[in-house]
Amino acid sequence: MAETQGKVITCKAAVAWGPKEPLVIQEICVDPPQKMEVRLKILYSSICHTDLGFWNGTNEAERAFPRILGHEAVGIVESVGEGVKDVKEGDYVIPTFNGECGECRVCTKEESNLCEKYQVDPMKRVMVNDGGTRFSTTTTKDGGSSQSQRIYHFLNTSTFTEYTVLDSACVVKINHNAPLKQMSLLSCGVSTGVGAAWNSAKVKEGTTTAVFGLGSVGLAVAEGARARGASRIIGVDANASKFEKSKLMGVTDFVNPKDLTKPVHQMIREITGGGVDYSFECTGNVDVLREAFLSTHAGWGSTVLVGIYPTPRTLPLHPMELFEGRKIAGSVFGGFKPKSQLPNFAQQCMEGV
Amino acid sequence: MAETQGKVITCKAAVAWGPKEPLVIQEICVDPPQKMEVRLKILYSSICHTDLGFWNGTNEAERAFPRILGHEAVGIVESVGEGVKDVKEGDYVIPTFNGECGECRVCTKEESNLCEKYQVDPMKRVMVNDGGTRFSTTTTKDGGSSQSQRIYHFLNTSTFTEYTVLDSACVVKINHNAPLKQMSLLSCGVSTGVGAAWNSAKVKEGTTTAVFGLGSVGLAVAEGARARGASRIIGVDANASKFEKSKLMGVTDFVNPKDLTKPVHQMIREITGGGVDYSFECTGNVDVLREAFLSTHAGWGSTVLVGIYPTPRTLPLHPMELFEGRKIAGSVFGGFKPKSQLPNFAQQCMEGV
Repeated sequence: MAETQGKVITCKAAVAWGPKEPLVIQEICVDPPQKMEVRLKILYSSICHTDLGFWNGTNEAERAFPRILGHEAVGIVESVGEGVKDVKEGDYVIPTFNGECGECRVCTKEESNLCEKYQVDPMKRVMVNDGGTRFSTTTTKDGGSSQSQRIYHFLNTSTFTEYTVLDSACVVKINHNAPLKQMSLLSCGVSTGVGAAWNSAKVKEGTTTAVFGLGSVGLAVAEGARARGASRIIGVDANASKFEKSKLMGVTDFVNPKDLTKPVHQMIREITGGGVDYSFECTGNVDVLREAFLSTHAGWGSTVLVGIYPTPRTLPLHPMELFEGRKIAGSVFGGFKPKSQLPNFAQQCMEGV
Repeated sequence: MAETQGKVITCKAAVAWGPKEPLVIQEICVDPPQKMEVRLKILYSSICHTDLGFWNGTNEAERAFPRILGHEAVGIVESVGEGVKDVKEGDYVIPTFNGECGECRVCTKEESNLCEKYQVDPMKRVMVNDGGTRFSTTTTKDGGSSQSQRIYHFLNTSTFTEYTVLDSACVVKINHNAPLKQMSLLSCGVSTGVGAAWNSAKVKEGTTTAVFGLGSVGLAVAEGARARGASRIIGVDANASKFEKSKLMGVTDFVNPKDLTKPVHQMIREITGGGVDYSFECTGNVDVLREAFLSTHAGWGSTVLVGIYPTPRTLPLHPMELFEGRKIAGSVFGGFKPKSQLPNFAQQCMEGV
């Protein structure tokens, strides 16, 4: 049993104190995990664009400072709270911003991974158990204030810290032999992209696909489509330097909107005889979303939204356009139910899918 | 063989000469069917709101006058053009505005009923074969003009006439014993509504459904959901007098927006524990569309659009709302492939489904 079990841990964290203010590396206090919670020592944490979005504080309603950002990580369980059975001290785990309670109406159905209790919620900043936080500032030695200040949680995770506390619903056990550094990406980017192809679009062998935006999520989508046997994967990006890298992930054709005198969807329809079977929007831009939608084949084309759209603009699609038989849907965490499905996915990643 | 075969038939039709101008009952000439076309004697024709929309001429691009409107009907084959094998003189048939060539990339796939050659097209006004029309005005006896004027076709059908010519792809044979008067509704309203529940939403036993708009299509949706074993069918309409009639079609709960002080979707979520499994938008109003969308359960709710939206307004949905797992799609002709699937549906209607 860890010596720290049941005690407050003092450690370092990168704390966001306000929109666009540099993160402050400082000592914080991390309370012990409560009922059905887990305290982790974070081993690796990567940075995702969503962290940046919340740091920018563009959406006022989502602002909460001071806060510990970060949601892509790998950690080791330091201790568990009352009732936690599926992980124990010493287990290697990845945090997931979209949790799985295993008991709600959604968790007990196959159709969705949006757990009623622990689904990703950009407004959430405290723990479910008591509405409090497990992070606080240490009492300053010479600052005069003897009062510590609570620090908010973020996306069910908060990983920019040496220690963090999560609901056990948001912790997924992985193999001890897993390459930990890479596994961090399964917390978000890779699962989101590959899962969008596998679970949300359900890409079939021999089909055609267009991926809009070849960042890490877009590349993961391409890899997912490649693994499912897509015969053609068209990458769309305004940055020509991305083509070479994207080839490694299965992209077969590269379309640069800057090189075109016609809309991208028209170009894609021309080279595919009417449009692709699936398109994926990974840029978070609603005008690109429209192009992605129109790039699919009428009758059965399916567009999966993976980007985040920080805009008040609504969908630039006319209701009558839905009668052409193109479908559109959003994908959260690649449609993976984290606790049920991610361990197997992590294993597949280790073995090469 | 009909005496009229190969000859121009002079008969009466109700011709629309301009937007909102009263239809003129007048003699017209109906040319013989060309290759892969069929000439019908219309026995019954019903009126659908879509006829009214085109008569109003609200959408300038769709205007084409003079024109013979009407698309819900039953007829008897008078003669067939070269190459037509599947129907013959004397067959009872229903015209369908959405055709099926049987050979294109869409027709040979299961996913869609939007035939590449004969799918419903509001812009189309002439025959595929030669780009001409089969209708013309008779030369006036005493009007001085010796020139006849061509009359445009409408929605692959044009049934407000004693005789009409259609592509054989848009003609479905029905049983000689079928109740002809009622079968007319299979040309559009009943197939559209029942099919939306059966083919587009694929309503499952024991599920919950909300139908927005209890006109003939909405009632057909309710009947389709009832036949598939939906446990609860919530009818939404601002006209309270529709409840009694809708009960006969399986509606179990009636919501009148006029009686509420909260949005309809909120009421529906409350009475269903989070929302219905399926909602159907049958009013053609985009604000109602938003309510229909939000009335379904997060994670798996599915909204099917059945209405026609004569507005420049785009979808009043934010892209981020798609991440709550609700789906939305359009349904044309209830998703039925007309020639392959409608004969069986007609038989089911005769036997009581």
